[in-house]
Amino acid sequence: MTDTDYTVGDYLLDRLAELGATEVFGVPGDFNLEFLDHVLAHDTIRWVGGANELNAGYTADGYGRLRGIAALVTTFGVGELSAANAVAGSFAEHVPVVHIVGAPSKDAQAARRVVHHSLGDGDFEHFFRMAREITCAQASLIPATATREIDRVLSEVREQKRPGYLLLATDVARFPVDPPSAPLPTYGGGTSPRALALFTAAARRLIGEHQVTVLADLLVHRLGAVDKLADLLAADTVPYATLMWGKSLLDESSPNYLGIYAGAASAEPVRRAVEEAPVLVTAGVQFTDMVSGFFSQQIDPARTIDVGPVQATVAGQVFAPIDIDAALEALTGILTDRGVSFPAVADPVAPARDAAPAPDTALTQKMLWDRVSDALTPGNVVLADQGTSFYGMAAHRLPAGVTFIGQPLWGSIGYTLPAALGAALAHRDRRIVLLIGDGAAQLTVQEIGVMAREGIAPVIIVVNNDGYTVERAIHGPAAYYNDIVTWRWQELPAALGVPDALTAHASTVGELDAALAAAAENRDRMAVIEVVVDRADVPPLLAELARAAAAANAAG
Amino acid sequence: MTDTDYTVGDYLLDRLAELGATEVFGVPGDFNLEFLDHVLAHDTIRWVGGANELNAGYTADGYGRLRGIAALVTTFGVGELSAANAVAGSFAEHVPVVHIVGAPSKDAQAARRVVHHSLGDGDFEHFFRMAREITCAQASLIPATATREIDRVLSEVREQKRPGYLLLATDVARFPVDPPSAPLPTYGGGTSPRALALFTAAARRLIGEHQVTVLADLLVHRLGAVDKLADLLAADTVPYATLMWGKSLLDESSPNYLGIYAGAASAEPVRRAVEEAPVLVTAGVQFTDMVSGFFSQQIDPARTIDVGPVQATVAGQVFAPIDIDAALEALTGILTDRGVSFPAVADPVAPARDAAPAPDTALTQKMLWDRVSDALTPGNVVLADQGTSFYGMAAHRLPAGVTFIGQPLWGSIGYTLPAALGAALAHRDRRIVLLIGDGAAQLTVQEIGVMAREGIAPVIIVVNNDGYTVERAIHGPAAYYNDIVTWRWQELPAALGVPDALTAHASTVGELDAALAAAAENRDRMAVIEVVVDRADVPPLLAELARAAAAANAAG
Repeated sequence: MTDTDYTVGDYLLDRLAELGATEVFGVPGDFNLEFLDHVLAHDTIRWVGGANELNAGYTADGYGRLRGIAALVTTFGVGELSAANAVAGSFAEHVPVVHIVGAPSKDAQAARRVVHHSLGDGDFEHFFRMAREITCAQASLIPATATREIDRVLSEVREQKRPGYLLLATDVARFPVDPPSAPLPTYGGGTSPRALALFTAAARRLIGEHQVTVLADLLVHRLGAVDKLADLLAADTVPYATLMWGKSLLDESSPNYLGIYAGAASAEPVRRAVEEAPVLVTAGVQFTDMVSGFFSQQIDPARTIDVGPVQATVAGQVFAPIDIDAALEALTGILTDRGVSFPAVADPVAPARDAAPAPDTALTQKMLWDRVSDALTPGNVVLADQGTSFYGMAAHRLPAGVTFIGQPLWGSIGYTLPAALGAALAHRDRRIVLLIGDGAAQLTVQEIGVMAREGIAPVIIVVNNDGYTVERAIHGPAAYYNDIVTWRWQELPAALGVPDALTAHASTVGELDAALAAAAENRDRMAVIEVVVDRADVPPLLAELARAAAAANAAG
Repeated sequence: MTDTDYTVGDYLLDRLAELGATEVFGVPGDFNLEFLDHVLAHDTIRWVGGANELNAGYTADGYGRLRGIAALVTTFGVGELSAANAVAGSFAEHVPVVHIVGAPSKDAQAARRVVHHSLGDGDFEHFFRMAREITCAQASLIPATATREIDRVLSEVREQKRPGYLLLATDVARFPVDPPSAPLPTYGGGTSPRALALFTAAARRLIGEHQVTVLADLLVHRLGAVDKLADLLAADTVPYATLMWGKSLLDESSPNYLGIYAGAASAEPVRRAVEEAPVLVTAGVQFTDMVSGFFSQQIDPARTIDVGPVQATVAGQVFAPIDIDAALEALTGILTDRGVSFPAVADPVAPARDAAPAPDTALTQKMLWDRVSDALTPGNVVLADQGTSFYGMAAHRLPAGVTFIGQPLWGSIGYTLPAALGAALAHRDRRIVLLIGDGAAQLTVQEIGVMAREGIAPVIIVVNNDGYTVERAIHGPAAYYNDIVTWRWQELPAALGVPDALTAHASTVGELDAALAAAAENRDRMAVIEVVVDRADVPPLLAELARAAAAANAAG
């Protein structure tokens, strides 16, 4: 490529590649087609087209969670708005996705022409204003400042772990520019040495000779501080729990792992260990309704050290600015230095499990999730849709090396199916296990065909419980609006372009075990297992949260 | 129902019923479930759940085009944003859809709680601000003013023929109110008698003894002025054309019908008849890129009378305020009164049609659309997706009584499949013919199952041309990004819950004729006809517009 051929579009792709993207997701449209030529021509980036833009947005989100960056390309108006729910979800759940929108030429915009994919009123800023509400940084690129603005938006995305928005008009995309001459600038560390010293002294006083318990959540992962947190956990015998949002953040097979803390909805020993801890360190924690048993957490600030993205508090006193890494390191130092060490926790007795049911026993939700979690192996990435799948799995301990993905704050049903494609492409060596209800799968099912085209062979468990069971649990258990159309799940993969998928139907324990075994033996084939359970059967955790949700909706 | 049981939700439903809605579309979510109980309990309104919100929004749009009002119910954040593309399309294409969004209780909002389906920042106005960009009126309902605000928004929707937005929190929906005591207020007529008199005098001078030619478009339909326009056409021998956007607005079987005017992309006799008309009346016309051959219309203002929604112009002089009805009536009066009458147009020679190809001839796009238009019968509603289907059909004369629906301004591919469901429910007695490409159908295919549940039996022609042919025509004819996953279209209906669909595969003229005949004979069964054509074959009109689109994107 000669210098004069190098365009704004190439610059953007090189920056995305620098941040770790090797795939770009989206749907073609006439305002982005020429840019897509540059995607196809790029040395290290591949194009992965989705069946529609919402699905492509979910795919980008799933990829971004594991890869640390993702890019989504749509076309003006029709395409970008179809993806809005996915982008907003990335915002809510702290996922770095760069949304690139192909737009009519700046000339057409300036002339306020009534062009297709516009509202016809000559105003080309409607969708830019909409994007401002759901992204952390935006730019409507013009030739003169395009590279600088790309750098600004990409830096913000990387820093804030939130989506950004780039409006790329056809004539701007092809404008010649120089390639990047230096790496994308990084912000300097945000930690004040003085604040850190004061924080460390206060934390040392509070901790004294007490045992430290840790409650960690998702933001530790998003801020890249998992290793620093692991150091803290290794500095002494530190019992720890996570919220559901942060499930699989830490090793769940360790004897020090308490389980999932969910306020009043926690298992009692977990609740007591967290709420009665002499000193509790909360790291990257945000209490949302669904992960806190509807704000039923009882955390005493006087005994708590909270470590957040840009500040830390000790017994309610705020120290800032302090990066999460620096605060965790300081706490590790305190435990290492103090010369106290708590006895190792004995391996806990394995949680009581019902005796293995006979193979012809009709499956219940409890049996289903027990058996699915037993079948997981290190390396699996488990995506659980925000219904019975998520709440059924949340309570299970996962093997070390299993990554768990849900969406408990944004909670968009159907999200996990396209997200599974993204996760698979982010880590081609890890096998994906997708757990999704029938109602949820109907929203986004098209991407099954794209998985096959991309050579992805996930295990997909479709929970056929005849409708929106998560809604039934909250309101309208027998209402018509919670019914869905009955699909033939085992015929679906072939119709959608996956004729060689392994399909199975399981309504008994034996059928499920056989299907899981066959899936495990055929690592290179997609497996679609339709599991039939009663439509009123819900995991205990969901039953409890659904009661709280119904009460919250009834209040006021 | 006792007075104290009557709620804001019931009031809203009664107003929708008053405007003519007998169906409400959407997807359940926990913030709208209780309102849905009131939908189910309503005397005349039914709930029609969609597989996802974008599809439900398209369905509502298709219904609103024929019924004159439609309602869409989604849940906060996740649901409403998924529907944003559909709602924006309704705005661009002047379709009256009321978007009702179930929201967290006002208490939860006031407390800025981090609840599911929010962005987690305590700001519950993000999505309201987004909705402002794509709706003509909005209200975040509170108990004290809910009924008044509902009336305001619904009046605007009815008046402007654009979507409106109602944010309905759980606790507001159940607030007790009085039922409507009077019909929804209507705006007074907007016509100034003085302006109308001046307009009429000016128009009479311009028309003199010239023959009048009419060019009409979509807004005549949306503003409910089709009958007034028909009166004008009957007042003398008035040759007339429409734009593609307004296709089927007027009788296309009349000898006075010229055809479709599309600027330089028009058939030459149509172009000359319109552009060289001694006096041209343009009624409800908006020239967008795709219907004007990329703004190639040559309309001389000095010989033109333009009739718009709120004003009329004669040779460039503006008269306002004048409603479209009043202006059309005045023009009819001029023609009736002047004592001149032009000779009737002889029935035109039927357009040259190639000799019927032999049954084993491989289908081309031209043969396909010729045969499909020959098979249409009065009463059909034809929905043509914005690819080869739309441009292939646009040039054909339709039998009287056929309604044609496309989306040439918004141009969101996949729109027509769910819209076909809405159109069918708006007019249960009319048979739906859906024409859609394989790439487009993949975006929104789920609704096939919902059609069957609702007892709808459309004829669905899936043009299998192996990808996004409309994009190939514009750019990247062989590019990978215009490829799609290969589906098995004939297996799909059964997988999606329509085991009794009539399915057929047609790659020759004979196969297509047989499939169309079978579909006609089985009026109560869904027919899915997969038609295989070459992926590079495009209708001539699309080829011309695609060249213009590529040139527009290359400009600047």
